[in-house]
Amino acid sequence: MPAELGRRLLAELVGTAALVTVVVGSGIAAQRLSPQDVGLQLLENSLATALGLGVLVLVLGPVSGAHLNPVVSAADAVLGRRGRTGLRARDVVSYTGAQVVGAVLGAAVANVMFDLDAVQVSTTDRTTRGHLIGEAVATAGLVLVVFALARTGRGAWSASAVGAYIGAAYWFTSSTSFANPAVTVGRTFTDTFAGIAPASVPGFVLAQVVGGVLGLALVLVLYPFESARSA
Amino acid sequence: MPAELGRRLLAELVGTAALVTVVVGSGIAAQRLSPQDVGLQLLENSLATALGLGVLVLVLGPVSGAHLNPVVSAADAVLGRRGRTGLRARDVVSYTGAQVVGAVLGAAVANVMFDLDAVQVSTTDRTTRGHLIGEAVATAGLVLVVFALARTGRGAWSASAVGAYIGAAYWFTSSTSFANPAVTVGRTFTDTFAGIAPASVPGFVLAQVVGGVLGLALVLVLYPFESARSA
Amino acid sequence: MPAELGRRLLAELVGTAALVTVVVGSGIAAQRLSPQDVGLQLLENSLATALGLGVLVLVLGPVSGAHLNPVVSAADAVLGRRGRTGLRARDVVSYTGAQVVGAVLGAAVANVMFDLDAVQVSTTDRTTRGHLIGEAVATAGLVLVVFALARTGRGAWSASAVGAYIGAAYWFTSSTSFANPAVTVGRTFTDTFAGIAPASVPGFVLAQVVGGVLGLALVLVLYPFESARSA
Amino acid sequence: MPAELGRRLLAELVGTAALVTVVVGSGIAAQRLSPQDVGLQLLENSLATALGLGVLVLVLGPVSGAHLNPVVSAADAVLGRRGRTGLRARDVVSYTGAQVVGAVLGAAVANVMFDLDAVQVSTTDRTTRGHLIGEAVATAGLVLVVFALARTGRGAWSASAVGAYIGAAYWFTSSTSFANPAVTVGRTFTDTFAGIAPASVPGFVLAQVVGGVLGLALVLVLYPFESARSA
Repeated sequence: MPAELGRRLLAELVGTAALVTVVVGSGIAAQRLSPQDVGLQLLENSLATALGLGVLVLVLGPVSGAHLNPVVSAADAVLGRRGRTGLRARDVVSYTGAQVVGAVLGAAVANVMFDLDAVQVSTTDRTTRGHLIGEAVATAGLVLVVFALARTGRGAWSASAVGAYIGAAYWFTSSTSFANPAVTVGRTFTDTFAGIAPASVPGFVLAQVVGGVLGLALVLVLYPFESARSA
Repeated sequence: MPAELGRRLLAELVGTAALVTVVVGSGIAAQRLSPQDVGLQLLENSLATALGLGVLVLVLGPVSGAHLNPVVSAADAVLGRRGRTGLRARDVVSYTGAQVVGAVLGAAVANVMFDLDAVQVSTTDRTTRGHLIGEAVATAGLVLVVFALARTGRGAWSASAVGAYIGAAYWFTSSTSFANPAVTVGRTFTDTFAGIAPASVPGFVLAQVVGGVLGLALVLVLYPFESARSA
Repeated sequence: MPAELGRRLLAELVGTAALVTVVVGSGIAAQRLSPQDVGLQLLENSLATALGLGVLVLVLGPVSGAHLNPVVSAADAVLGRRGRTGLRARDVVSYTGAQVVGAVLGAAVANVMFDLDAVQVSTTDRTTRGHLIGEAVATAGLVLVVFALARTGRGAWSASAVGAYIGAAYWFTSSTSFANPAVTVGRTFTDTFAGIAPASVPGFVLAQVVGGVLGLALVLVLYPFESARSA
Repeated sequence: MPAELGRRLLAELVGTAALVTVVVGSGIAAQRLSPQDVGLQLLENSLATALGLGVLVLVLGPVSGAHLNPVVSAADAVLGRRGRTGLRARDVVSYTGAQVVGAVLGAAVANVMFDLDAVQVSTTDRTTRGHLIGEAVATAGLVLVVFALARTGRGAWSASAVGAYIGAAYWFTSSTSFANPAVTVGRTFTDTFAGIAPASVPGFVLAQVVGGVLGLALVLVLYPFESARSA
């Protein structure tokens, strides 16, 4: 039903906006308040993101699946009925659109809250070989976490697990784990701590797609049957 | 039954007092022990609040709903039976009174524990355009979290989610997320890290009310039916 | 059965030893590794304690109730069958003995792991009016958390809640929340970050007993019936 | 069935690789971003590990038991049907092999993500009397946590509890709690924050085995019957 899809798209838009507001806003606060230590800034930024993302997945999961991420939506459609929310292939495009629009709006909200110009363009170049490997690893892990839980009937753990995973991935990947093409686009619209220059986006998104495919392969090998538990 | 209402009001008073003691007390400790970095102070203050608030909601929820916040009480009454605790409109005033009295007492307890004068008035002006937008965003999010869980039959997650949400909102909003008129009033009674000057209170409370209405609108659009799950 | 009691006492001894090892050991590590900021030391110390204490309550709860604290054991006996584990009055003394012996052993284990003399006496005086009020508040809150959950049939949340509560109380009380006579005695046996001079012990223990009585009164007023839920 | 065992071994290999990537990668990031305070580095490293390890146990538990640790696999086999996953004695060797291979691969992935040579040898000597006692204590505690939950029918708490335990043990043990022979071997292959010189490995592994035996003895005394609950 279109009405039903509209509500789901609104949830994806609001949720991705909120996610980018959390990431960018906490990054600005951290940069301003802890100017002497970049690690402390990242600690503040990563903890705020872990907590905020977990809450978003918990709150919006029952409405839209709380993908907030085109890679997750695409993987969901590929897995079909055996995935989390059984998203139809033709809805991946509209989900992605809502997520990207939300991400851009979220950056603007964060900028405005911190008395900055609403629209900015990041000048932070992030492309290195290590960062691209980091994005592939980060996205593979995210897909594994989300669909491992879905396929073993433990979706209720998804919110805590996704928040915790991203909180850790800020640190163990060299790229601080964007792992999300929509959020990557949104983060080009702020020239602050969490920003990424537009020129770095194609490489990041390509690495995320590669990681998504790797993650999907791992899911199919490790969890060949839905709800399979061998232990 | 009056007796029953009395017990609920006591829970709101004790709970809001404890919340302000946690916020103000941990702010004083952080300011004294980490004098060199304001960000580190906020990290200490926000983690203590996230943990303490989560515990308070868990402990007092079965008695009074653990609103600890007039905006939440008002939203609860508006949603009526479809809300969390089905608070009657005429009880919103007494809930609010208990919360405000508790908040003021809580600031005094924190002051005394740290060997300061029990009654003080804050001199910290916090009114900026960005901070007011921050308070609206923070309160909208809080209302969304509380009632999204209530309307999808997952109130048991409320304690963890509210604690985590406020822990994140300390960072992603520019105002450090008061998001609570009673707590805002209480925090005028301490001239320490977490204080707010009386002159900043009207703007903050107005922004919180606006945010509460926005949050309520989002709840009604995203969760039109109680216990609705589309996924 | 004596054998059964013996197993419970062993759990209390091992658990209280582990708790003091966590508190003292993480304090030593924090003091050595973050010499420039006492707040950062307390952040490290408090997070390690919150996580460690939560795990101990989870692991040992089914054996002995995981009181690890004479005030909790005494309150449990006072509440009788309506309390958590229905401890008999005559077992409070043996529980307390096991807890105190464990606490002393735990300090020695921490000292030895960090290549210090096993037995030391703290020279850190902690007696101020504010600290004593802090200990009363901290202990009242702890008793409220433990028995509110027990009396509303939610003992499964006890481990997370007690860990989170103490993690917050390190910060919002001026005394860093000992809130435990056995642990207070154990912490006299290390002259490091978490130590307390023997001369400060009587005041701390008295404040903890006063707090325990206040907490018990709050429990009886707010939760007059076992498993009562008004919301 | 060999096919089934193959899937379990893949899970152990991937999981142990991911664990070492988390430990080593977050260590490199922490060391680079917070150069002024070793304690802050350890805080960042320990929080990333606690979150990441908890997610790994949650995700891989249903496939292989998510031991990711030869001491846990051996203890599981000793406890037999009364243990967690009922691992057969003859499979301990293949589990250990998968864990060690995974651990080495994980170190290489972390090195490469941070633009370092894939294969390195650590020069960090860690052998002191206190560190060896620390490893024994850390491993005894880990075995107690894992099998206490298994034997009281609460394996669903295992992921959170193991993550929290290791997060605390980074701090309360002097050795930062390796507590895992496979991970210890893997960490020799990086000359960064989390590395350990090959010469320190035999002492660490021996201490871990001693700790594992102590932990197993505690499990058998405190939880003599499977699913026994005395409270």
